[in-house]
Amino acid sequence: MIIVLKPTATQKEIEHLMEKIESLGLKPWLSEGVERSIIGVIGKEDIIRVMPLEGIPAVEKVIPILKPYKLASLDYKPEPSQIKIGGDLSIGGKKIIIMAGPCSVENRDMLLKTAGIVKKAGAQVLRGGAFKPRTSPYSFQGLAEEGLKYLAEAKEKTGLFVVTEVMDVRNLALVMKYADILQVGARNMQNYDLLKEIGKTKKPVLLKRGMANTIKELLMSAEYILSEGNTNVILCERGIRTFEDFTRFTLDLNAVPALKSLSHLPVVVDPSHGTGRWGMVNSMAWAAIAAGCDGLIVEVHPQPEDAFSDGEQSLLPVKFEELMRQAEKIAQAVGRTL
Amino acid sequence: MIIVLKPTATQKEIEHLMEKIESLGLKPWLSEGVERSIIGVIGKEDIIRVMPLEGIPAVEKVIPILKPYKLASLDYKPEPSQIKIGGDLSIGGKKIIIMAGPCSVENRDMLLKTAGIVKKAGAQVLRGGAFKPRTSPYSFQGLAEEGLKYLAEAKEKTGLFVVTEVMDVRNLALVMKYADILQVGARNMQNYDLLKEIGKTKKPVLLKRGMANTIKELLMSAEYILSEGNTNVILCERGIRTFEDFTRFTLDLNAVPALKSLSHLPVVVDPSHGTGRWGMVNSMAWAAIAAGCDGLIVEVHPQPEDAFSDGEQSLLPVKFEELMRQAEKIAQAVGRTL
Amino acid sequence: MIIVLKPTATQKEIEHLMEKIESLGLKPWLSEGVERSIIGVIGKEDIIRVMPLEGIPAVEKVIPILKPYKLASLDYKPEPSQIKIGGDLSIGGKKIIIMAGPCSVENRDMLLKTAGIVKKAGAQVLRGGAFKPRTSPYSFQGLAEEGLKYLAEAKEKTGLFVVTEVMDVRNLALVMKYADILQVGARNMQNYDLLKEIGKTKKPVLLKRGMANTIKELLMSAEYILSEGNTNVILCERGIRTFEDFTRFTLDLNAVPALKSLSHLPVVVDPSHGTGRWGMVNSMAWAAIAAGCDGLIVEVHPQPEDAFSDGEQSLLPVKFEELMRQAEKIAQAVGRTL
Amino acid sequence: MIIVLKPTATQKEIEHLMEKIESLGLKPWLSEGVERSIIGVIGKEDIIRVMPLEGIPAVEKVIPILKPYKLASLDYKPEPSQIKIGGDLSIGGKKIIIMAGPCSVENRDMLLKTAGIVKKAGAQVLRGGAFKPRTSPYSFQGLAEEGLKYLAEAKEKTGLFVVTEVMDVRNLALVMKYADILQVGARNMQNYDLLKEIGKTKKPVLLKRGMANTIKELLMSAEYILSEGNTNVILCERGIRTFEDFTRFTLDLNAVPALKSLSHLPVVVDPSHGTGRWGMVNSMAWAAIAAGCDGLIVEVHPQPEDAFSDGEQSLLPVKFEELMRQAEKIAQAVGRTL
Repeated sequence: MIIVLKPTATQKEIEHLMEKIESLGLKPWLSEGVERSIIGVIGKEDIIRVMPLEGIPAVEKVIPILKPYKLASLDYKPEPSQIKIGGDLSIGGKKIIIMAGPCSVENRDMLLKTAGIVKKAGAQVLRGGAFKPRTSPYSFQGLAEEGLKYLAEAKEKTGLFVVTEVMDVRNLALVMKYADILQVGARNMQNYDLLKEIGKTKKPVLLKRGMANTIKELLMSAEYILSEGNTNVILCERGIRTFEDFTRFTLDLNAVPALKSLSHLPVVVDPSHGTGRWGMVNSMAWAAIAAGCDGLIVEVHPQPEDAFSDGEQSLLPVKFEELMRQAEKIAQAVGRTL
Repeated sequence: MIIVLKPTATQKEIEHLMEKIESLGLKPWLSEGVERSIIGVIGKEDIIRVMPLEGIPAVEKVIPILKPYKLASLDYKPEPSQIKIGGDLSIGGKKIIIMAGPCSVENRDMLLKTAGIVKKAGAQVLRGGAFKPRTSPYSFQGLAEEGLKYLAEAKEKTGLFVVTEVMDVRNLALVMKYADILQVGARNMQNYDLLKEIGKTKKPVLLKRGMANTIKELLMSAEYILSEGNTNVILCERGIRTFEDFTRFTLDLNAVPALKSLSHLPVVVDPSHGTGRWGMVNSMAWAAIAAGCDGLIVEVHPQPEDAFSDGEQSLLPVKFEELMRQAEKIAQAVGRTL
Repeated sequence: MIIVLKPTATQKEIEHLMEKIESLGLKPWLSEGVERSIIGVIGKEDIIRVMPLEGIPAVEKVIPILKPYKLASLDYKPEPSQIKIGGDLSIGGKKIIIMAGPCSVENRDMLLKTAGIVKKAGAQVLRGGAFKPRTSPYSFQGLAEEGLKYLAEAKEKTGLFVVTEVMDVRNLALVMKYADILQVGARNMQNYDLLKEIGKTKKPVLLKRGMANTIKELLMSAEYILSEGNTNVILCERGIRTFEDFTRFTLDLNAVPALKSLSHLPVVVDPSHGTGRWGMVNSMAWAAIAAGCDGLIVEVHPQPEDAFSDGEQSLLPVKFEELMRQAEKIAQAVGRTL
Repeated sequence: MIIVLKPTATQKEIEHLMEKIESLGLKPWLSEGVERSIIGVIGKEDIIRVMPLEGIPAVEKVIPILKPYKLASLDYKPEPSQIKIGGDLSIGGKKIIIMAGPCSVENRDMLLKTAGIVKKAGAQVLRGGAFKPRTSPYSFQGLAEEGLKYLAEAKEKTGLFVVTEVMDVRNLALVMKYADILQVGARNMQNYDLLKEIGKTKKPVLLKRGMANTIKELLMSAEYILSEGNTNVILCERGIRTFEDFTRFTLDLNAVPALKSLSHLPVVVDPSHGTGRWGMVNSMAWAAIAAGCDGLIVEVHPQPEDAFSDGEQSLLPVKFEELMRQAEKIAQAVGRTL
């Protein structure tokens, strides 16, 4: 850690700071420059990172050198992690995993129908929400356990694995019974109690990036889960908030190579929520594969105009089939398979 | 609601859309323009707002006319709400309420000491976190019930009311025992299960704006609490994420007059989290009062450099006293009292 | 246009508004709803768009129906535009155009060397700045005409066409002599005097999206050029400002399918400025092609560590060759050629 | 400057880097840590700041220690600058300066009328655009020299000083003849050729922050003007682009105390453009004064609904009088005068 001092810092203030650092068992060294003096700190940065040194008037700024996450970093584990979803299916290797299905589980028929469609088109995992985080209290909030049961039935009938969201720690045990992958939604990326509870399980978890969260913060939320002992974390880019209002969010594909350069964890992209427009989903799905993602999660609905949620961004089956056909070619072009 | 059709929309597609609207018990009317045709929908907008009409290929865009929240709106209640905190103390009237104290309850001594300081300087409410949402799993996470007990002791000793955060539905009953005002943190603004549970109580709640959330979304989260029956909602602006990196967040004081023009609920401003820099807190606190806020929530710490969390943005007692002195004059200038 | 009235609007205010609209030769109709009344306006929206109706107290909001640009829109010209760069080379068709070279023209030798490298790897256009917009007045500002002459020499030696930036109307005639494509930088996207002057020429222009500008505003800046008579506008996505700070900007690939759904103009992507990190350029370049762009503009430098500007984001020749090899495969996968 | 090395950096790469630094006449020192080694650079940071060290594969990141601007900084000049506008009027001292008037000069009558109104209410400077940067080429673009002449006439009649925008270097001499303060608009904050030309004059200049520019970049644009010899730079906060869409921009009042902590230059706030809503202008103007600004620039129009530009955000005379009455009380409360 580097501490930059104000030009007005007095000798006494500097000594006070040096003593403070030494009292933590760390070794400070002072470098006096013409315009600014700086103090370098050698030793475990973790100890000092949590200290509010910028609260000290003589300090201009504090610059950490090390990354604030460990277990999620490439430094810690330089090889990509492959996470087992179930059966022979893993994510993080050569094969790109496709998760598809409706935003919400609306009823038994539509779910089974959609499951059949996405299976046939080549998906390996069925998505579908039983508990739905909705901006308005007056919107459809999901079928709860009934929805989970339909997911289980669809899994049995098609062989698809199931990814579904858990929103509340009180429902974790319930969702665990039915899900192959737990989804943590963007609005819960920093719901730390939920992350810790999930960390105590071994269940694979799809951790969505919050819409105002940096790549670093996504990795720190992953660290919450990893540090509790669950190493099966899959990261998911799903769009961030920016000033651009043509798209619902700004899908940040830069996160794909960025996360790959920082972490060993697999990266999935959600072009449906990321754009909020069905007409853009396919282009962005293909781009995600070219950028190096390990999987896609896509909304498909047999009749988007009747969807209870997010129909604007759901693909008709015929569009999803087009997505898959082209995705396969692009995967090949970048040395992957679908 | 106004539905704008694509220039390529066919007669058949238009009829299909009109029938769909009628089948919901609403009345559509078609206006054929030279460049674009539009369909207006008369009747309860709620019914159709949840339909994904933009999922229909013939539709270019859908424009809602009404606000998606009701109970929180000035239309519903044109007079400002005054919310009783305890004893004679209310927020939302002429008097501006000051909430102050440390970020975290660190130990008994520092809390009692800080409580005495802020009481003496003129605050009415003591802030202090017993459960702390921290970006890193390796940071101090709060004293939990022990911290709540110290808050109760400080309350008894000083007569200050207590505002403290609840992060997890499982702790709601516990926090309810000790808090006069429940705080919902920015990271939980869209934790809908938590909002609903709080809505079932009558406890005043300080609802902080999420760092990526619009003013409209803040009001919709308030609506979650209001619609469950708890009318004691206090809104709180605490800074949003922008590209500016000199400040930790961008405190959005525009939210004060904006919320006042849309809602009857009181508005509090948090200049400590909003700026992340102690040297800017006072200026922004004064500006918040001039902008029309009903209260402030400010971090004060007897020794910021030793704080377990957020010391960078905590005021020394002497700076807090300066804040209060000047705040009183500005309050008078805008026809309020402290 | 739809004008939503406040619930408090009086009969007299409504009549005043209706008369105002009629006086402009437009036809208003009033629709009185239970919660809100609205006035629709039939006729040329341009006339009324420029009126500050939201300045009238009875008005809650004004909602335009039509797009504020015409000549740039797909409504006006439903087929993609192919723009001739020179010789047989056009952009906007099946072939994806590669523009590559150093950020700045630093000296004759490095420019000729780089030109040879990018030509050999398959680029068709040489990029290189002779006038450089630099954040700091103390940074290298470009070689001016001397740089333009080296570009001309490189063109003659390699057959590459030249794209280079014009920053100042006073230099337009000079840059026109040497450039096959004029570049308007992100910082000048709303330098309207410059756009108008370029509009009076017939020279192809690469119009870069401003770092805080929406897709709609990019098209409106294109409209400035188009409306003066120059139809040779090429749009360029180069990254927007967001809260994410791992990348220098957030390259918004969503702009590619978005612009393609709104406009007939070709779209180029700049992954070098968009990410600011050489290690991410190739991934994002490949993603851009999969997303449907018509061209790339990429910084290549034989010795990035010695570059006078933007070396952080410049590719070594060997990385650029890798970019081209993979780009060709992806282009094929999406039915394009390189 | 601190250079953080990748854990994979080889001895040879480190030596190469050290030599490179020494070859620039600077002194490097290497500190080898357990997790990361770093190289510190002693000497003139300017020399090395412009080198693209992040283009070197062994480098993880480069951290500058010093500020990239000098003449604009408090380090360079620790006392606030007072800038003479004309006659006895200066900005930057105890007195808060009010600039008011229409967005555009629309015609002689309205300008003279507005000038009389704002003069009577207490303003010292008349604003009004003769050259207007408009997003759409189809909007009113200003009266050009005719508008400047009306400003001169209004000045003569009222004694108000004149602030007006210069958009194009070709018009600088013309605008200089009529303006007491040159305005550089937000869209031109990084139009460096314009800044340099203005820097060669001695005319006071109101430099508006670009809507996507950081506080640091605003100071660097000021540096362009200062480094050419013109020390009369007034900074202006006028709103930045964020995801919030209730307001037209997000007026960033945090910029006021931030700029005051970094620079000696006076700071003006524009609540009209910053919010885009007349109903919010007064609250934010008052907040700006409480936050410590040195001046306001406000749009006033006798009939906002007929304004040629920006009527949505223009104040009626009666609202401007209210602004001034309350502003005076707040100024007193913070030890200033109006």
